[in-house]
Amino acid sequence: MQETTRLAGLVQERIGDMIAEHRRALAPLGPDIEPVLDEALGFLAGGKRFRAQFATLGYQSVAPLDLAGPIGPDLAAVVDAASALECFHAAALIHDDIIDRSDTRRGRPAVHRLFSAMHRQQGLRGPADRFGLAGAILLGDLLQSWADELMQAACDGVADRAAGRRAREHFNRMRSEVALGQYLDVLEEQRPDFAEHETQLERSTRVLVYKSAKYSVEAPLLIGGALAGATEDEERALASFGLPIGVAYQLRDDLLGVFGDEDVTGKPSGYDLAEGKRTVLVTLAREQLPSTQRRIFDGLLGTELDAEQIAMLQRTIRESDAVERVEGMISRNVDRATDALHRAPIRHEAAERLARLAERVAVRTS
Amino acid sequence: MQETTRLAGLVQERIGDMIAEHRRALAPLGPDIEPVLDEALGFLAGGKRFRAQFATLGYQSVAPLDLAGPIGPDLAAVVDAASALECFHAAALIHDDIIDRSDTRRGRPAVHRLFSAMHRQQGLRGPADRFGLAGAILLGDLLQSWADELMQAACDGVADRAAGRRAREHFNRMRSEVALGQYLDVLEEQRPDFAEHETQLERSTRVLVYKSAKYSVEAPLLIGGALAGATEDEERALASFGLPIGVAYQLRDDLLGVFGDEDVTGKPSGYDLAEGKRTVLVTLAREQLPSTQRRIFDGLLGTELDAEQIAMLQRTIRESDAVERVEGMISRNVDRATDALHRAPIRHEAAERLARLAERVAVRTS
Repeated sequence: MQETTRLAGLVQERIGDMIAEHRRALAPLGPDIEPVLDEALGFLAGGKRFRAQFATLGYQSVAPLDLAGPIGPDLAAVVDAASALECFHAAALIHDDIIDRSDTRRGRPAVHRLFSAMHRQQGLRGPADRFGLAGAILLGDLLQSWADELMQAACDGVADRAAGRRAREHFNRMRSEVALGQYLDVLEEQRPDFAEHETQLERSTRVLVYKSAKYSVEAPLLIGGALAGATEDEERALASFGLPIGVAYQLRDDLLGVFGDEDVTGKPSGYDLAEGKRTVLVTLAREQLPSTQRRIFDGLLGTELDAEQIAMLQRTIRESDAVERVEGMISRNVDRATDALHRAPIRHEAAERLARLAERVAVRTS
Repeated sequence: MQETTRLAGLVQERIGDMIAEHRRALAPLGPDIEPVLDEALGFLAGGKRFRAQFATLGYQSVAPLDLAGPIGPDLAAVVDAASALECFHAAALIHDDIIDRSDTRRGRPAVHRLFSAMHRQQGLRGPADRFGLAGAILLGDLLQSWADELMQAACDGVADRAAGRRAREHFNRMRSEVALGQYLDVLEEQRPDFAEHETQLERSTRVLVYKSAKYSVEAPLLIGGALAGATEDEERALASFGLPIGVAYQLRDDLLGVFGDEDVTGKPSGYDLAEGKRTVLVTLAREQLPSTQRRIFDGLLGTELDAEQIAMLQRTIRESDAVERVEGMISRNVDRATDALHRAPIRHEAAERLARLAERVAVRTS
């Protein structure tokens, strides 16, 4: 746990330094850009830093790295990569919240809501939400390019150029996959009807894999591993642990999206239901319903729901065996991942820490 | 002109190859992502390729490069950088059109309108414009990351590592500046009132410099020059040509935004007026008006305007001396740039071609 705290501190420091540097370089643009930079800093102060942890453990799976020691070039590169992932993730969340019309994130107003509020406070003209949209799109764009700069620094920072190039390949693929996985997610929730069960399950699983599992766990591990010069075997081992843990991570997220506690998740209870997300959980639950009830269920999903309707949908899902099935899938994926870990040609200490992190990811409440 | 045609062909080919490569790599995401990739290709088929030309001439200002010859590593790197700039610009335009609520771009529907139309055609549920927004945000994000990959390829492609790093620095600064310049532009148009004349002119000029002049001309030149290993003197020369030409470029854009012909610009006539852009042109025009007329002018700007109101605002601007003043500023900036060119320590042939391009940029009609 001490390593985790130290890593979080290093990442926060790196992000703070980066923003301060940008602030100096961008001073000629005048004081009106300050709120954007402040919001960059504010948004990046939050988050669980799972991606930073996976990137670091990816590195440590392949080569030793003392987080408590002095900051040499290797540790600096890992912190750069971890910060890049957190920065990219912030950008993705900011755009995601526009797309999903989410009002809250990390227990505070979503970025587009913050800019809307600023519009009202300053008595700007025109619709406040239009300004909110502009501010959030542009801050997301800015953080995407800053993420890229941090990743460059990481890849330039390791002595082995091929290792740096390989890390970039993983980062690049991750960016394309998450944007398109996110597109499929939106497309799915706006289709007029659920597909036939098997097809729907396949589609929901595909969204889960690309929008989340690979993005949240597998890619950070592979990026960290690549920076340490991972061999093909080592990469395969990291992936065969990372993918099932990523799946477990997102299945847990599906449960939190329906049953999560607002005070803990920072998102209103049942937000996935109002957004009409066709998650694996939801797909499994509706399959069990008699056709009349299923029609009602489908009709409510993705509409403006009041508290009673949300409670009703939650009850329906709970009364099906979908929750047990998803919990079973989480366990099996965690087992598969830890099994892979035992057989993996990766460093013992890192494997132990990965196993512990896997448990945390799978049982988390936020 | 032949060089320009050859460059446009090389850039188009590079972009086509890149998208084909991504299409192969992303095949596991299934056929539903095809419309996004098709739209990436469709959008990138258009455009004036000014940035590609400036990047190439930036290189040729510093080192010889035969566009008609075989594609060696240097030409490949320049084409990569030129394609990166075009790809980044596409991303910026797609997000820009969301922010400005523009319905058309390059003579076809804006990307968010295309995705909205797809939503209707496929009978998806929920509001079509929400789907349009999602598709356009995500395609913009995707193109931003692809731009970055192309720029990596460019910088890795030149033998001199320091030159590659320097090119990235220019690219990175450009990305931050354009996002924040764009933010200032939106902020400006939504302020309740115009500022006092001198302050307003200063703000409008700042937006013009960061959102456009540096972005469209200076940065592409510097990126190209850096790839060729430009010295500080050479960079200074490129900047002292590029900035005034960039200013002239945007001042011409201000005129086109008010008086441009829809058939030529691909945007409805007077679009800057409906969007309420506080351009240098508009700022100069309203300064001349008697206070009653100015109040009417300010009240109309940035509202839903019918054809008659647009014609009235156009007439008002034309009757002031703002058009002449802006034309004068364009001429003076072009003169300043060509003067700088004569004194510049850059290759003669490139200087001649830059001078010709400068004229084209300053007198264009689209």
